[in-house]
Amino acid sequence: MTKIAAGLICLLTIAFPHVSDCPAAGQNDAPPDAVRVLIVYHSEQGHTAALARSVEDGVKRVPGAGATLRSAAAVKCDELLAADAVIVGSPVYWGNMSGVVKTFFDRWSTDCKILPPTFAMRDKVGAAFVTGGEVSSGKEVALLTILAAMLGNRMIVVSEGQALGATATTGEGTTPLAARELDEGRRLGERVARLAQAVRKGLASTKKSE
Amino acid sequence: MTKIAAGLICLLTIAFPHVSDCPAAGQNDAPPDAVRVLIVYHSEQGHTAALARSVEDGVKRVPGAGATLRSAAAVKCDELLAADAVIVGSPVYWGNMSGVVKTFFDRWSTDCKILPPTFAMRDKVGAAFVTGGEVSSGKEVALLTILAAMLGNRMIVVSEGQALGATATTGEGTTPLAARELDEGRRLGERVARLAQAVRKGLASTKKSE
Amino acid sequence: MTKIAAGLICLLTIAFPHVSDCPAAGQNDAPPDAVRVLIVYHSEQGHTAALARSVEDGVKRVPGAGATLRSAAAVKCDELLAADAVIVGSPVYWGNMSGVVKTFFDRWSTDCKILPPTFAMRDKVGAAFVTGGEVSSGKEVALLTILAAMLGNRMIVVSEGQALGATATTGEGTTPLAARELDEGRRLGERVARLAQAVRKGLASTKKSE
Amino acid sequence: MTKIAAGLICLLTIAFPHVSDCPAAGQNDAPPDAVRVLIVYHSEQGHTAALARSVEDGVKRVPGAGATLRSAAAVKCDELLAADAVIVGSPVYWGNMSGVVKTFFDRWSTDCKILPPTFAMRDKVGAAFVTGGEVSSGKEVALLTILAAMLGNRMIVVSEGQALGATATTGEGTTPLAARELDEGRRLGERVARLAQAVRKGLASTKKSE
Repeated sequence: MTKIAAGLICLLTIAFPHVSDCPAAGQNDAPPDAVRVLIVYHSEQGHTAALARSVEDGVKRVPGAGATLRSAAAVKCDELLAADAVIVGSPVYWGNMSGVVKTFFDRWSTDCKILPPTFAMRDKVGAAFVTGGEVSSGKEVALLTILAAMLGNRMIVVSEGQALGATATTGEGTTPLAARELDEGRRLGERVARLAQAVRKGLASTKKSE
Repeated sequence: MTKIAAGLICLLTIAFPHVSDCPAAGQNDAPPDAVRVLIVYHSEQGHTAALARSVEDGVKRVPGAGATLRSAAAVKCDELLAADAVIVGSPVYWGNMSGVVKTFFDRWSTDCKILPPTFAMRDKVGAAFVTGGEVSSGKEVALLTILAAMLGNRMIVVSEGQALGATATTGEGTTPLAARELDEGRRLGERVARLAQAVRKGLASTKKSE
Repeated sequence: MTKIAAGLICLLTIAFPHVSDCPAAGQNDAPPDAVRVLIVYHSEQGHTAALARSVEDGVKRVPGAGATLRSAAAVKCDELLAADAVIVGSPVYWGNMSGVVKTFFDRWSTDCKILPPTFAMRDKVGAAFVTGGEVSSGKEVALLTILAAMLGNRMIVVSEGQALGATATTGEGTTPLAARELDEGRRLGERVARLAQAVRKGLASTKKSE
Repeated sequence: MTKIAAGLICLLTIAFPHVSDCPAAGQNDAPPDAVRVLIVYHSEQGHTAALARSVEDGVKRVPGAGATLRSAAAVKCDELLAADAVIVGSPVYWGNMSGVVKTFFDRWSTDCKILPPTFAMRDKVGAAFVTGGEVSSGKEVALLTILAAMLGNRMIVVSEGQALGATATTGEGTTPLAARELDEGRRLGERVARLAQAVRKGLASTKKSE
């Protein structure tokens, strides 16, 4: 199906919302005031992408929350800055997030001018998910350093699934993710979306009452 | 009311304990529906205690927030469970929180029966502060592992001051904390109190609308 | 009982192995110039003790290496200072080594006066092993912070088994360790003993040639 | 140009230092059996490069040790595999090594085919140094994750200077490094070179006696 054809179906969908084939490409049909959850991932073999989609499914469980799925290299600054929450996923390479994901974080400063002391990502919700070949090949370190990057940006950080986020152990690289692992991803997406809603409402209400 | 007057009331309170106006040991005069921030610390030489008091000052800047200051060994399970937020401070010993602070976290399970999958601390706000003798003697590792313990408990984690929390470098053990370091502590306390309020309001509002 | 008497009983034990009074438990019959590997662990349910014994088995595979097994609370300063290598094992509690193990490290300074800038543990070999209930409940963080404590002491650090040391995932607390996990422990013990020998010989030879 | 020709030009350069074609920059005149220490760094503003040069100076203090200085993007696989020790330096970006340095580690697998279970970097000595804008902006996390990458490769890891390696706090980006910071770099280089010699001698002697 060509992109133009897809676009036409999208237009039709506005008139005929029961036609559900449309805005599939990494965006759900959330209302304009929806909490926006940006899911960023890097995937070479498809494992992290699969976990990313389960995170997306979790976000979509929450009424009034919209998910956008982007590969790390493709994220645009305005998407980042417009998000209420950012969930970042990486494969584990040598005990850490991949260079591609680390470079994505570096671009926050160089390209998007997200810098101290203004910290444009302040008070957005953040979380992490990873896939790794072995049980303890660095999944926790990767999760923790993704969260550390977010904390340095003064984001509000949570986990779900395992202690520090959602994880999958992918063995030889051919195993599909286990049902339990995909469920961790969904629970992570759902928790982040709910918290992002609560934080937005709560901070707005707190400011109003000042 | 002057500090002297408050002090006199405190003395009277010993004789007339039903007089409850005194800002007794480690508790401010917050209203009953106040957000409760529990500040837990371990201090041998007084540095971490000094930073803890600046965190407390920061909490008290926020109207409707109450701070309780406790040494790690003295925290009771009901205080922990009743808190809306917990901020934990430690000296750095060999690149990590002290054994006293780590043992405090271990007691969450053994004494207070805070365990998976119920996670009784879920959705409370958490943060960390540390003091260390050298610039890079392990302050970040201590901050990060305090936050990791909180994330494992499914708490909501933030920083302020430095990237991962408030810090002080104490040199030979005789230097008083720098003004900038005490300010980091106050900003941490204030941010945690404000976020705890927002999360409580936001989660309540979210649940109501379901 | 004097050391000589104890030694005599030990000698007798070789002939009469049913005589069990000899302090053989946790010490092998290594020659006096043997490389001494001290294995320190904390174990509540027996999992970390089981992994510790496999580490000990690994050390004993190396001719001329002696292993001493000690629970963390029982280690004496002279044992620590006399060791050529120290391997520390911990259960994972809230994403870190246990308070008992952390307190063991704290005692290096308070009890054993191991302090900067002399760093009495300098150039000893160090490594770590852990057991945890879940796949990613903090095993890596515990391994990494044990190694960080050793690096702060200017020790020489290695891993084997998983990326950061030997690990076991113990599930509900009743599972015995898997063969693969015990093998990780043995390989860790063996690698540390061989490296400790090489470092001792190498540093001696380097100093001689100066 | 052959190696001999290059060598001749090098010799000439000593007499005619304005002749700048000699690959002297980043290589010292170590004997062929010298222990080879590869110093890899990434530097945008020159701070990490300055610390890298002090590390190089430290290596050169050790008779029989040769240092090669390379920017992270320029390291070739054969240089990596030929080294007895690798010391990696990074600026701190968002609480971790830079994406450039992380990508350098990722290339170990993708380009250089350094993979489990052979671990071609096994038993090489590794260490780390970092520069960061603030006291606790992530220097320790960057050091620790560089060391974690090395441990995952089964390298032998040490620190010197601060607890986890040599560090410099660069403030607003214009401050030159402090004398104490440069000294940390030199001590790191020296320690790594000496240990690499000891490990090489020790492991050779151990194998001979088997």
